[in-house]
Amino acid sequence: MRPVAVVGTGKTPFGAFPERDLRSLAVESVHKCLENSGLTADQAEAFYLGNFAGPSFVGQNHLAPYIATEAGIRDVPCTRIEAACASSGSAFFHAWAAVAAGIYDIVLVAGVEKMTSQSTARVAEILAGAGDMAGEMAAGATFPALFAMIAKRHMYEFGTTREQLAQVAVKNHHHGAMNPMAHMRKEITVEKALAGKMICDPLTVFDCSLVSDGAACVALAAVDRARDFRAKPVRVLGIAQTSGPVALDQKESITTFEAVRRAGEKAYKMAGVAAADIQFAELHDCFTIAEILATEDLGFVPKGQGGPYAASGATALGGARPVNASGGLKSKGHPVGATGVAQICDVVEQLRGEAGERQIAGARLGLAQNLGGSGATAVVTILGLE
Amino acid sequence: MRPVAVVGTGKTPFGAFPERDLRSLAVESVHKCLENSGLTADQAEAFYLGNFAGPSFVGQNHLAPYIATEAGIRDVPCTRIEAACASSGSAFFHAWAAVAAGIYDIVLVAGVEKMTSQSTARVAEILAGAGDMAGEMAAGATFPALFAMIAKRHMYEFGTTREQLAQVAVKNHHHGAMNPMAHMRKEITVEKALAGKMICDPLTVFDCSLVSDGAACVALAAVDRARDFRAKPVRVLGIAQTSGPVALDQKESITTFEAVRRAGEKAYKMAGVAAADIQFAELHDCFTIAEILATEDLGFVPKGQGGPYAASGATALGGARPVNASGGLKSKGHPVGATGVAQICDVVEQLRGEAGERQIAGARLGLAQNLGGSGATAVVTILGLE
Repeated sequence: MRPVAVVGTGKTPFGAFPERDLRSLAVESVHKCLENSGLTADQAEAFYLGNFAGPSFVGQNHLAPYIATEAGIRDVPCTRIEAACASSGSAFFHAWAAVAAGIYDIVLVAGVEKMTSQSTARVAEILAGAGDMAGEMAAGATFPALFAMIAKRHMYEFGTTREQLAQVAVKNHHHGAMNPMAHMRKEITVEKALAGKMICDPLTVFDCSLVSDGAACVALAAVDRARDFRAKPVRVLGIAQTSGPVALDQKESITTFEAVRRAGEKAYKMAGVAAADIQFAELHDCFTIAEILATEDLGFVPKGQGGPYAASGATALGGARPVNASGGLKSKGHPVGATGVAQICDVVEQLRGEAGERQIAGARLGLAQNLGGSGATAVVTILGLE
Repeated sequence: MRPVAVVGTGKTPFGAFPERDLRSLAVESVHKCLENSGLTADQAEAFYLGNFAGPSFVGQNHLAPYIATEAGIRDVPCTRIEAACASSGSAFFHAWAAVAAGIYDIVLVAGVEKMTSQSTARVAEILAGAGDMAGEMAAGATFPALFAMIAKRHMYEFGTTREQLAQVAVKNHHHGAMNPMAHMRKEITVEKALAGKMICDPLTVFDCSLVSDGAACVALAAVDRARDFRAKPVRVLGIAQTSGPVALDQKESITTFEAVRRAGEKAYKMAGVAAADIQFAELHDCFTIAEILATEDLGFVPKGQGGPYAASGATALGGARPVNASGGLKSKGHPVGATGVAQICDVVEQLRGEAGERQIAGARLGLAQNLGGSGATAVVTILGLE
């Protein structure tokens, strides 16, 4: 496998955009990425699209050629990948693999979701399709309910507290408040988070990520081509996609996502680094408990220590290892199919030193972790400067 | 790129199976493929799934790990690809590329769709999502309407007749009547086809493929591993995926699918063969006119000659170049996400000499063509004996 670099990024703002359709969001991200990299659409040898549920949210399927044509990408393989909330993380993985293996020199990978045109109840129903509809969901669960069970169990096993969950939300809102592309730019306090509307005990509305519209795109190129482009290239040093059972009840433990743990191990091995080397990360905080699990499953702290770790300030900007300096899914927003590629964009911006007031000094090695469902798909990517 | 072989196949029957769910169909095809090849589930280094609209048809998304877990495939990348009716053709393309490029030695590729639990009207609506919902479909079109326009134009430009369309249906029903796995095993006559219920002039119900449930799976391996397995390996000699506009009105001509033409050219070039060398083919006859277009776009005959060619008997079993000896989408059935891989299975069975009374004598070189929507995605695969 030859080395691969991210040579361009493009993002729409994340938010609720009633006047925008899915395709225009995706095309905007592609065009911004082309502009950022100095590529033209006809240089893309393949187009990968991550999208979770366009057909259910907006009624449009066959989205890869639908978007590619409008973006000016013609003739080449255009492929939509669906892996629940890890759809564009998985699209990125496959695009990386194709370039690393020498199939293509230059590819574009976008992710998009348009969620806010549906009612909250319908959004919950569509999202439930990422879980086991014949099992846990037929029994009445929703994703907040599944992650509430995970949180309850984590509290029981490890003494994690509601205050520690709230600390994750407070931190991510603090970061997101500084991110001009974020969906919800407002600071909150631990008190406010704890007093939030209860969605599913122990998770309040402040423990849950946002329902958003948005898109993101990156350009990947073989490293020996990477200097042809406008932006400072960022290397993909390690990456892995793994899978596990979709149904929560099929997992041996619900306080660890085995797929995340294994994806992390593989990505560290490929990159030749250890968890301790990771300076900062974008982690999949679909719920606050998910960020805590991720810090454990990726080896930032031992299992069970994620709660105190979050409360310690280590994962805040200015701390030892900032997590979700973008604001995360919690504050930046979570247009499901866009999230994986948006995480890559956010890590790349930090490595390029383009993160403005959220810039992490001396950023050279970052990690992105994208999760599908309650741990059935995991993609971990390690990015770094050369 | 190193050589790759199909080393196993597995198919469910195609039909209407109210007692079966989507997952059980897919898992059956995987298990049959493992049995056919002599592989075990834990030898699969990746799992690719083609599925068009599971979330809309049965409410379940995140299908790749959902099916893989039940089939005994663990830990490895499990990825769903959606490309309308070319979903599993595209999944096969990406799986082939990954093995050819040396990323994996052994992968499984399945396709599945469970369509018959929805009303006919709802099926038409879900299928319409493979077209431009904001354009042609919002204007009132359905896929039969789009292909009726194509047929009308083909008649206008080239003199193609309704009788020639009917000949395609009669031939494919004749083939399918001999296929124990086919959905609709009955002979029809040209008179019956012409007198069929009009769906959209000039297409009667006999010009339209079936709404089916079913699944198919193949195992791919690097050729240097292919002899480890039970079945006679069949080489992937050439393959290409291409794209074009989703909306019919964005195409320069509606009597040629440019994406099919280009995919064919690329696949022929990779295989080092010419159209004239292809002994038999499984072509995407979602409508009778689509088979006629495919014989032209793939260079079996010059543009405009597909109608007389169909009527000549050349494409029937016993003719010079049998097309859809399986019965095609018209008679074998068209569980959308399964079709691409099922075509590969059917070509492989012919090359192995396992096609029973439908066997083509001396079959050494066959082609499969899978189409998404009205030509926005095309995958052409050329398979042969070593």
